[in-house]
Amino acid sequence: MHMRGFSRKFSKKRGLPPGTIVHTGEDRNRKVLITVMDYNDKKIDETKLATMEKCNRFENGSTVTWINIDGVHDTKIIEDFGKYMSIHPLVLEDIASTDQRPKVEDFEEYVFVVVKMFYYVEREKKMKSEQLSIILKKNCIITFQEEQGDVFDMLRERIRKDKGSIRKKRTDYLLYSILDAVIDNYFVVLERFGLDMEDLELDLTKKPSTKTLMKIHSLKHDIIFVRKAVWPLREVVNTLIRNESKLMQPTTMRYMRDLYDHSIQVIDNIEALRDITSSMVEVYLSSISNRMNEIMKVLTIISTIFIPLTFITGLYGMNFKFMPELEQVYGYPTVLVVMVILSISMYLYFRKKEWM
Amino acid sequence: MHMRGFSRKFSKKRGLPPGTIVHTGEDRNRKVLITVMDYNDKKIDETKLATMEKCNRFENGSTVTWINIDGVHDTKIIEDFGKYMSIHPLVLEDIASTDQRPKVEDFEEYVFVVVKMFYYVEREKKMKSEQLSIILKKNCIITFQEEQGDVFDMLRERIRKDKGSIRKKRTDYLLYSILDAVIDNYFVVLERFGLDMEDLELDLTKKPSTKTLMKIHSLKHDIIFVRKAVWPLREVVNTLIRNESKLMQPTTMRYMRDLYDHSIQVIDNIEALRDITSSMVEVYLSSISNRMNEIMKVLTIISTIFIPLTFITGLYGMNFKFMPELEQVYGYPTVLVVMVILSISMYLYFRKKEWM
Amino acid sequence: MHMRGFSRKFSKKRGLPPGTIVHTGEDRNRKVLITVMDYNDKKIDETKLATMEKCNRFENGSTVTWINIDGVHDTKIIEDFGKYMSIHPLVLEDIASTDQRPKVEDFEEYVFVVVKMFYYVEREKKMKSEQLSIILKKNCIITFQEEQGDVFDMLRERIRKDKGSIRKKRTDYLLYSILDAVIDNYFVVLERFGLDMEDLELDLTKKPSTKTLMKIHSLKHDIIFVRKAVWPLREVVNTLIRNESKLMQPTTMRYMRDLYDHSIQVIDNIEALRDITSSMVEVYLSSISNRMNEIMKVLTIISTIFIPLTFITGLYGMNFKFMPELEQVYGYPTVLVVMVILSISMYLYFRKKEWM
Amino acid sequence: MHMRGFSRKFSKKRGLPPGTIVHTGEDRNRKVLITVMDYNDKKIDETKLATMEKCNRFENGSTVTWINIDGVHDTKIIEDFGKYMSIHPLVLEDIASTDQRPKVEDFEEYVFVVVKMFYYVEREKKMKSEQLSIILKKNCIITFQEEQGDVFDMLRERIRKDKGSIRKKRTDYLLYSILDAVIDNYFVVLERFGLDMEDLELDLTKKPSTKTLMKIHSLKHDIIFVRKAVWPLREVVNTLIRNESKLMQPTTMRYMRDLYDHSIQVIDNIEALRDITSSMVEVYLSSISNRMNEIMKVLTIISTIFIPLTFITGLYGMNFKFMPELEQVYGYPTVLVVMVILSISMYLYFRKKEWM
Amino acid sequence: MHMRGFSRKFSKKRGLPPGTIVHTGEDRNRKVLITVMDYNDKKIDETKLATMEKCNRFENGSTVTWINIDGVHDTKIIEDFGKYMSIHPLVLEDIASTDQRPKVEDFEEYVFVVVKMFYYVEREKKMKSEQLSIILKKNCIITFQEEQGDVFDMLRERIRKDKGSIRKKRTDYLLYSILDAVIDNYFVVLERFGLDMEDLELDLTKKPSTKTLMKIHSLKHDIIFVRKAVWPLREVVNTLIRNESKLMQPTTMRYMRDLYDHSIQVIDNIEALRDITSSMVEVYLSSISNRMNEIMKVLTIISTIFIPLTFITGLYGMNFKFMPELEQVYGYPTVLVVMVILSISMYLYFRKKEWM
Repeated sequence: MHMRGFSRKFSKKRGLPPGTIVHTGEDRNRKVLITVMDYNDKKIDETKLATMEKCNRFENGSTVTWINIDGVHDTKIIEDFGKYMSIHPLVLEDIASTDQRPKVEDFEEYVFVVVKMFYYVEREKKMKSEQLSIILKKNCIITFQEEQGDVFDMLRERIRKDKGSIRKKRTDYLLYSILDAVIDNYFVVLERFGLDMEDLELDLTKKPSTKTLMKIHSLKHDIIFVRKAVWPLREVVNTLIRNESKLMQPTTMRYMRDLYDHSIQVIDNIEALRDITSSMVEVYLSSISNRMNEIMKVLTIISTIFIPLTFITGLYGMNFKFMPELEQVYGYPTVLVVMVILSISMYLYFRKKEWM
Repeated sequence: MHMRGFSRKFSKKRGLPPGTIVHTGEDRNRKVLITVMDYNDKKIDETKLATMEKCNRFENGSTVTWINIDGVHDTKIIEDFGKYMSIHPLVLEDIASTDQRPKVEDFEEYVFVVVKMFYYVEREKKMKSEQLSIILKKNCIITFQEEQGDVFDMLRERIRKDKGSIRKKRTDYLLYSILDAVIDNYFVVLERFGLDMEDLELDLTKKPSTKTLMKIHSLKHDIIFVRKAVWPLREVVNTLIRNESKLMQPTTMRYMRDLYDHSIQVIDNIEALRDITSSMVEVYLSSISNRMNEIMKVLTIISTIFIPLTFITGLYGMNFKFMPELEQVYGYPTVLVVMVILSISMYLYFRKKEWM
Repeated sequence: MHMRGFSRKFSKKRGLPPGTIVHTGEDRNRKVLITVMDYNDKKIDETKLATMEKCNRFENGSTVTWINIDGVHDTKIIEDFGKYMSIHPLVLEDIASTDQRPKVEDFEEYVFVVVKMFYYVEREKKMKSEQLSIILKKNCIITFQEEQGDVFDMLRERIRKDKGSIRKKRTDYLLYSILDAVIDNYFVVLERFGLDMEDLELDLTKKPSTKTLMKIHSLKHDIIFVRKAVWPLREVVNTLIRNESKLMQPTTMRYMRDLYDHSIQVIDNIEALRDITSSMVEVYLSSISNRMNEIMKVLTIISTIFIPLTFITGLYGMNFKFMPELEQVYGYPTVLVVMVILSISMYLYFRKKEWM
Repeated sequence: MHMRGFSRKFSKKRGLPPGTIVHTGEDRNRKVLITVMDYNDKKIDETKLATMEKCNRFENGSTVTWINIDGVHDTKIIEDFGKYMSIHPLVLEDIASTDQRPKVEDFEEYVFVVVKMFYYVEREKKMKSEQLSIILKKNCIITFQEEQGDVFDMLRERIRKDKGSIRKKRTDYLLYSILDAVIDNYFVVLERFGLDMEDLELDLTKKPSTKTLMKIHSLKHDIIFVRKAVWPLREVVNTLIRNESKLMQPTTMRYMRDLYDHSIQVIDNIEALRDITSSMVEVYLSSISNRMNEIMKVLTIISTIFIPLTFITGLYGMNFKFMPELEQVYGYPTVLVVMVILSISMYLYFRKKEWM
Repeated sequence: MHMRGFSRKFSKKRGLPPGTIVHTGEDRNRKVLITVMDYNDKKIDETKLATMEKCNRFENGSTVTWINIDGVHDTKIIEDFGKYMSIHPLVLEDIASTDQRPKVEDFEEYVFVVVKMFYYVEREKKMKSEQLSIILKKNCIITFQEEQGDVFDMLRERIRKDKGSIRKKRTDYLLYSILDAVIDNYFVVLERFGLDMEDLELDLTKKPSTKTLMKIHSLKHDIIFVRKAVWPLREVVNTLIRNESKLMQPTTMRYMRDLYDHSIQVIDNIEALRDITSSMVEVYLSSISNRMNEIMKVLTIISTIFIPLTFITGLYGMNFKFMPELEQVYGYPTVLVVMVILSISMYLYFRKKEWM
């Protein structure tokens, strides 16, 4: 995952007039799915739409409508949506270009929110991120995602089964619930990071290898990536609280403030993770070099013990005519004993110096 | 201790409606203990409660009541509490989820405060942290802790024995006293960190090992963890001072400001500790590599001295027919003398160069 | 590219009175090119000018005029421009000295904007930067560039072919479009950085060399350079939004805010890139030292295995008269077997210890 | 010095009611010294007091009185002082606990200031810090120090000999003079740090050893310690300037602002020292490793030259029956010449490669 | 240069009453030079003064007077100046103590400005810094420098030859021109840093040595030093702009803002230089260790190839009675061939593994 965000095909958009809708994410061919949830405290309808034509029929009436579009690569749908809902062209452009910075913009008649969703794909063993664009109107909310499958299944379930008070509330509470689901998933990602870190710390104390460092680097990379999404998210929630848009009711503010606390909590954890990974690199570098040093030390000590011994054998391998020791009957055993004593004393000396 | 806070089972809470009370801490089976202290300057009553039913009876009257609940894993108790005291569902949710960021929220009728308690468990040789949730009402304070045993024994003693002016004051002063006890324990933790650091510095100058680094890393980890709790704590105290809640009397403000000073003092010390641990890592890395280098140097010097000597023995071990030196009577002693001179001069050379 | 900005010939300007027009960029001899686009929603005229004399004729009238000057080394042209358009001498000085910090200055009658353009020259395989000075007046915009060739070709095409709404808007929208084109190119540069980083990460896992580090260092250098231009750019756009110059229409503000978001996005990416390159240096240093260690380890192990064997051969190369082993028929094969066993057991021992 | 501040016996104070006077510094047995200077522009009286009883007699009258208490371990004195001067219990507590953060508190009737004094004890070759608590009242100033001996001798001399205008001014000017003396000593400490650093830089270029690093670490430690006292000091002075206490006269403000400039100057120098020590660690680590590398290189080169030579001697030490070279009369000298040539060419090769 | 600022003789000033004029710079014996430029748009007079007596005669009248004093070691001159011009004693003290932080102070009747001048002394190959104190009055400016020779020669030339508009303007414009000349020299110093850095980068890629690191360290040191002077300089200029002193005319503000931009530009460059030097240290450390590793590798490989060969020679140097190989006619050549094959295969193996 971690390289995206840096190498998107920006060149695609260069030089086009502002408001031109260009999809900058990965290319996708599949059909875009449009699902509609229309509910109030009495009833709930779920339907699918083929196109966004006449989607403005949900704008009036007493129900709350949640239109979810899975895919932003079909620019026609976004255009239609803009036309029927009278959305500013720059907003449409932002929806299609999937590397927006999280932000909120208040257009009086509607509020535009962009955030990043993170989730962990167990099968691929990696984290994925997706852009979520939300349009909050008086009676309906429209959400755009890049892919099918999202973090809102449990939220939908709550709406369907009328759990909690969501069916009694308006679109602003639905916006809160959507953002809450997104941030809840940040905690899941943090949990995953925490587990990864515990594994790495175990690796560090047990058997660190280059792979360990690559994993730390990759974790750092992911942390930097999530961090980039989280800091502006805090601002998004804060702006929603302070802005006093007429679309937000005062009773929802308490919930928004709770969301704000959560976003700070995510930031705190991300920053702490960052500090700890930095410290882990130090531990890693030191472990590796310690391990290496241990090996080299032992090997060097072996050499050091044998080198004087080999010198002695060389001494008595010389061919001088007159070497009295060579004639002695006890010459050979004496040399052997000397060598044993020498090697033992060297061994003891090294022990005493705590070199072994 | 140090991994918690990152790998809590967040998944438990994902997707639930806001205000759902879910315990996110470690699982516990034991019964929750509810103790009540009810006092004014004349009298004091201490009782235990089985449930939170009708706990609102303490709300009116002239006495000050401190209800302490040891355990937040029994969601029934928290629910009851919410029902009888009319507390906002989000507050109840925050009480049960034990990884809140320290914060303060003013609900007019009551003030909700979350802080972290730290204490050192001598028996396990490690630091523990616990979440403390406080509800300040006009005539009573309710505190929720995760475990039995806390940092308030001496405070209770002061209330019982009517030491200081606490029995003459209201709940706001009790809130101050509780927070003061919490922050006092931060200093104890800092003291512990200080001692650990002194030990580590001694280790560093004496005999650094991989274990030393693991200890520094662990200390860093703990510091990061405490730091995460302390910075928001300062904001908590500051908000209590600035907010001018009607539940806080002006005379208590002087005490709160003292608390604020203490919290900054904790932060200052934590930051200084952080800087010093970073510096210690450098010293460690350098000590280790110095020690290693010393060993390698000595060993290499030994080899270097013997290698030329061995060469000489090799020279006269050659089997050439015509090697005049071999025939000399003084050949052998001459070579021995040469070798002694050679090794002594190499030794002196190395000394002069300060390599030994 | 990366050294420029530090070693410009500042000495040239030292001591001259303020408002003296001195070109501080690289020396150029070629003729300065002045192109004029004059348009409204009905018609468009494109002409070339030889001098700036009487350029003030474009100031009145209903058309929008974009005068682009390719080259700031001909001080005569800048002087003329100042004279006929009544521009403050300090502005003229800033246009000519090509190491300005991005900034905006409001002179009531006109607004002066300086930004940096970055583009990647495929042929030279390096990034180039150029200073762009913009004067916004009621009916015309004058832009000064250092070199021919720029990032505005597609913008000109849009004006010529009347794409989007640009022909219907005034000079403030043209200013927005110019800045938008500049910032779009920042993303292209980021994309390039991203690709370079991917290459480097691949290098790191495959076969890191000193060259890899030089590349990382050079990338860091470029990032620092772009960063220096981007942070003030954000302020520039922000000032344009907040200043409420009478030359800027309210409807353009929405577009400017979009630009502001983009500039923050660039900053976010630059900062993330910075963090990642720092982490890459650590990985690099560790990889290099690992690789080296691996080699040294293998070589040392080879030596360590042979040293005791050589000692044994030395042993039986001694010339003692009485060495019973030497007389044995099976002496030699026994020694050979011992040596084989010894080397195999050392090999197995090293394996077991995971040293190989 | 450098560990204090972290491992003070905080446990002593834990759980006591606020306002309890507990001495947290080192234990001291000696008698507390109370000296009084009472002066106006006409006359000056110096006396010693045994107790603080009736110290309030100095509060009225036209003279300025400076009561200095050398020692805060005698809680009785502080209690008396509090009683007769009607000082808030929290202030008394702060005076006795000697690890306060520098701060200023305005109690209308008096101003409470805490700062840290630093001085270098030549005899013990280390820096000491002491807490100085100051109570500013309309007609008298009371100062509490931990130990006898301080940085105010020259100030007292000035008062005695009526140098400068101090005898003509009120207590606010005396407060300024006291703080000025304290800050002047900070510069002396900085000077000492500067000298230490020069010594260290010399060490680094000459002969770096582990001791050098320990010294750098210790210097860093001291810098962190002083830094912790200096940053809040700036706030203290700033608060005194902004607060407009009725005890401070406008003419003194000019002097206070000068003090403020000095405190920033101290901070600037401390931060610069910090940066330079960090850079010194890098230089140190590199010098050490360079020195080591140089030694290892020379030793390895010696081995490398001798190993092939030893191989050659081994070659002609073999006992093959048919080795024609051995029979040659010029065999031995030829081999000697070959070996000389070989070693010289290796030496030259290493030189050419700049390995030596 | 770089140690000054830390080890000045602060002790000299300790304990003296505020406003005492003490010279804290290097001791100087030479006579102080006082030059006067008195001009308006019609005429210009240049004279020299022996003392500052009656220097207040320049205060009235329509001309602009610039009195420059080269040397602050003669306290008599500063005292006289204070007396005749009625300057606050603290200002006089600041002029004499040459380690002031850059600052501006508005005394209604006059403005006091302190800045640092930097210039490169080609002859000594090092940077020098000097304190410049400026007193701005309605009709005259008085500047104090530490040494003769300054950065204002070209400014004086401009006044003499009536270049630009300086002769038509008042003292506030002269103040601007002086500060402009000072900041222009900062750019020259930056240019010098840039050149040094280019040299160092070349060194790094070519042949890094300990000297290279010492140079980087020294560059860092200088950068820290200049940085300490530049950040407050920005505040100085900013204060001059915001303060709206009656001595500053509105038309000069545009020029001051230009100065402000320049000071930020200097800061930007200084910060970028800082980042790059940090990165250079990493490259240096890595290059050095790479180079070392390369050497060690080659040497180790040589040893590794010869050690097995030497073992073989040892083998056939053994004196066993029954070693059939020794009796063979082709024994010796066979062994030689085996050894050649062995060494070639090892060489090829190392090549294949890319160890050579």
